[in-house]
Amino acid sequence: MEKSFLKEHFDASKESFFEEWKEFLKFQSISPDPAYAKDCQKCATWLQKKLISLGFESELIQTSQHPVVFAERKGPEGAPVIVLYGHYDVQPVDPLDLWESPPFEPVLRNSRMYARGAQDNKGQLMYGLHAVETLIKQDALPCTLKYIIEGGEECGSPGLGGILDEWGERFEADILIATDSGTLSKDLNTITMGFRGVVGLTARLSGLRSDLHSGVHGGVAPNPATEMARLIASFHNPDGSIAVEGFYDDIEPVSEEDLAVANSIPVSDEMYISLSGVPPVGGEKGYSFAERRGLRPTIEVNGIHSGYNGPGQKTIIPAHSVVKLTSRIVAGQDPKKILSLIEKHLQKNTPEGLTLEFSEQEAGGPALCVSSSSTPVHELREVLSEVGTGTVAFMWEGGSVPILTGLSRVCKAEPVLFGFGLEEDNIHAPNESFSLEMYEYGFLSMGLFLSRQGKLS
Amino acid sequence: MEKSFLKEHFDASKESFFEEWKEFLKFQSISPDPAYAKDCQKCATWLQKKLISLGFESELIQTSQHPVVFAERKGPEGAPVIVLYGHYDVQPVDPLDLWESPPFEPVLRNSRMYARGAQDNKGQLMYGLHAVETLIKQDALPCTLKYIIEGGEECGSPGLGGILDEWGERFEADILIATDSGTLSKDLNTITMGFRGVVGLTARLSGLRSDLHSGVHGGVAPNPATEMARLIASFHNPDGSIAVEGFYDDIEPVSEEDLAVANSIPVSDEMYISLSGVPPVGGEKGYSFAERRGLRPTIEVNGIHSGYNGPGQKTIIPAHSVVKLTSRIVAGQDPKKILSLIEKHLQKNTPEGLTLEFSEQEAGGPALCVSSSSTPVHELREVLSEVGTGTVAFMWEGGSVPILTGLSRVCKAEPVLFGFGLEEDNIHAPNESFSLEMYEYGFLSMGLFLSRQGKLS
Repeated sequence: MEKSFLKEHFDASKESFFEEWKEFLKFQSISPDPAYAKDCQKCATWLQKKLISLGFESELIQTSQHPVVFAERKGPEGAPVIVLYGHYDVQPVDPLDLWESPPFEPVLRNSRMYARGAQDNKGQLMYGLHAVETLIKQDALPCTLKYIIEGGEECGSPGLGGILDEWGERFEADILIATDSGTLSKDLNTITMGFRGVVGLTARLSGLRSDLHSGVHGGVAPNPATEMARLIASFHNPDGSIAVEGFYDDIEPVSEEDLAVANSIPVSDEMYISLSGVPPVGGEKGYSFAERRGLRPTIEVNGIHSGYNGPGQKTIIPAHSVVKLTSRIVAGQDPKKILSLIEKHLQKNTPEGLTLEFSEQEAGGPALCVSSSSTPVHELREVLSEVGTGTVAFMWEGGSVPILTGLSRVCKAEPVLFGFGLEEDNIHAPNESFSLEMYEYGFLSMGLFLSRQGKLS
Repeated sequence: MEKSFLKEHFDASKESFFEEWKEFLKFQSISPDPAYAKDCQKCATWLQKKLISLGFESELIQTSQHPVVFAERKGPEGAPVIVLYGHYDVQPVDPLDLWESPPFEPVLRNSRMYARGAQDNKGQLMYGLHAVETLIKQDALPCTLKYIIEGGEECGSPGLGGILDEWGERFEADILIATDSGTLSKDLNTITMGFRGVVGLTARLSGLRSDLHSGVHGGVAPNPATEMARLIASFHNPDGSIAVEGFYDDIEPVSEEDLAVANSIPVSDEMYISLSGVPPVGGEKGYSFAERRGLRPTIEVNGIHSGYNGPGQKTIIPAHSVVKLTSRIVAGQDPKKILSLIEKHLQKNTPEGLTLEFSEQEAGGPALCVSSSSTPVHELREVLSEVGTGTVAFMWEGGSVPILTGLSRVCKAEPVLFGFGLEEDNIHAPNESFSLEMYEYGFLSMGLFLSRQGKLS
């Protein structure tokens, strides 16, 4: 199929596409807040109806949380089977007063759709669905499609995660497509080559009867705030590498080819500073930006809290201290083992006189790595080179989507990960939006990719 | 004067003493909360009337905060002049629901007076005042007395501190007595040999545009929480000594005699654990408990806060981190210099890419050291050996009372510091109380000490 064919259909139908997208965005499908359970249910039912109208057989799978929309449309005998993953749930909307228009009253402004979920993931799900619809209507869909659309991604996918093993056989496919990621810039269509895995825990140092007077007890009682700082400092060597014993042992080496591709992405300090406010000086010395971001593991403190936080000075030795941390892991590292190594490190370095306790340990999942020799990735690259400026980049994502690791395991499928999200979309923040241009890129990419999977009979 | 004489008078008058003490305790003289300014004023006026009734000339000195009660009663020509320091203000009372009886409705239960301020400092002020009253009525007060009773000690004495230089000449004396301290145990009458000084500051590390995603930015952006931990860890060497350059330079050596006295106080690990919940393993290796508590300087973190503190994990690199710290200093160390050395240390170690800012810097005051060769201290030791079990201990306090350092400077007086406060009194906490037994010890000690200053004409 040619791009021009799809583009023509997009231009003819885009008004109705955007109206339907708005309908989808009106559902207040906030998954982390149980108050919105009914909205999630309604949103799932709406999706199911839409899929049935396109000729899919569909059912809502009840889970421990919100339902998963499963739908299947058989292609020609022997055609490749493709799973399309997405999620209909969205992040909470607070602080509400920072929104310029209500989060669940979608509105088009300056060629962007504004609403909670406009991009993540309702927008990126919808352009794919509209591409599928177009191919079906034009009798140009040569493969079997299975939709798996969950309602709990913003909570770490407890529902879908819980039914994976039971449903694994029904989910089996050749290719797993997920469009829940971003693109490096408007002019750089991006293939995601993997996600880091993640593990996390909360550690607490205590033992003091209560806050103690820092004058009366200073120099005598061990200080849980100071000692927590020393514990945290013990995680890293002066060169930024991680000092936890055995931490790096199982890492699979990155191929020269992948490394060259990863390092070919141009990122200047200025670009990074304008994005984040700080120069990219974190992580291990001796590794490039792209390596430190996607191919090397980390231990990051997400929060540390102890003692007084009001105005002026309160002269106490705080009764306890708490650190919350997550570690991103890469290919070869086992989540449970890494979690256990971190715990051992903390136990070994527990300061005399204080008690260390762990809670909220989560071995979220291993890294997901796309093989650079994968046929679908080569095909996707070809497709993306026909969209926008035609420049294609490969990105190893620093973040984690544990459910995709699990899905690709049970689907036994090659993962194909792309998306058109940009920093400017403000996902997880007030005034989330998605540009119509990126919506069109997504539509064209998905349409072209699917139209070339298998042969029409 | 003999103890028996005083004891007889105490027994005869104690019911009326306790009634008057209750009257004093009913004033809601909470100094940190401006809502109680009128109560502070009323309490000061009540004290002034009481002192006038005993033959003092008295005035209320208006300050930037609550008034200082100043009163003077001339003794015989050439008699020693003694300043008695105390404070009529008290700590806030929250959490109110933990009080077993209302904090400003004083009540006697099990030979203890329960009320906010029962000990700190209204109780310890009142036993002295009743001793003075008894001596005056018995015509047995051989010295000139000056009372300086402030209403802002619980706020760091801004009012009294602000008038010290203006009033210095009127405050001049030979001896400065303060009974705002504790005793090591019921059976160990304690002379306080000094207080550590204190300086403090708040430091903030920032630079990130906002919280950043710890997956997307982990390994690239510097982490203000981790870096703050490393900064804090840099304060101490592995042996617990302080690594700030020049920190120890000006410390005056402690005399062998004082050291022997300090180390003679028996403190077992078990005693300390039962008191504080932790073994006394903090501070510098190679120094005794008493040295680390009162004669060595410290840097203590009073609070550290950064990032997420809710349930579960939030995968962020926190936008900023804040530490609040105070340093206790000892004889020879200059508060301003120490504050500046700590700032320099933090600046020198500021991590690349982040911004360090200071606020709330306070050079509270230098240490106050009582000379062990001081005549009044020898006299006090003699007096205390006649009270209770007659066992006397010397204590170098770890805490700081900056106003006493200032007062002893302008009074040009030898400090004499004692008190009968015990841990069980719950000062600054709900259900503050003071035992009648300790009240009597205080009465006897003050009475005996004053009766022996100078000769009656």
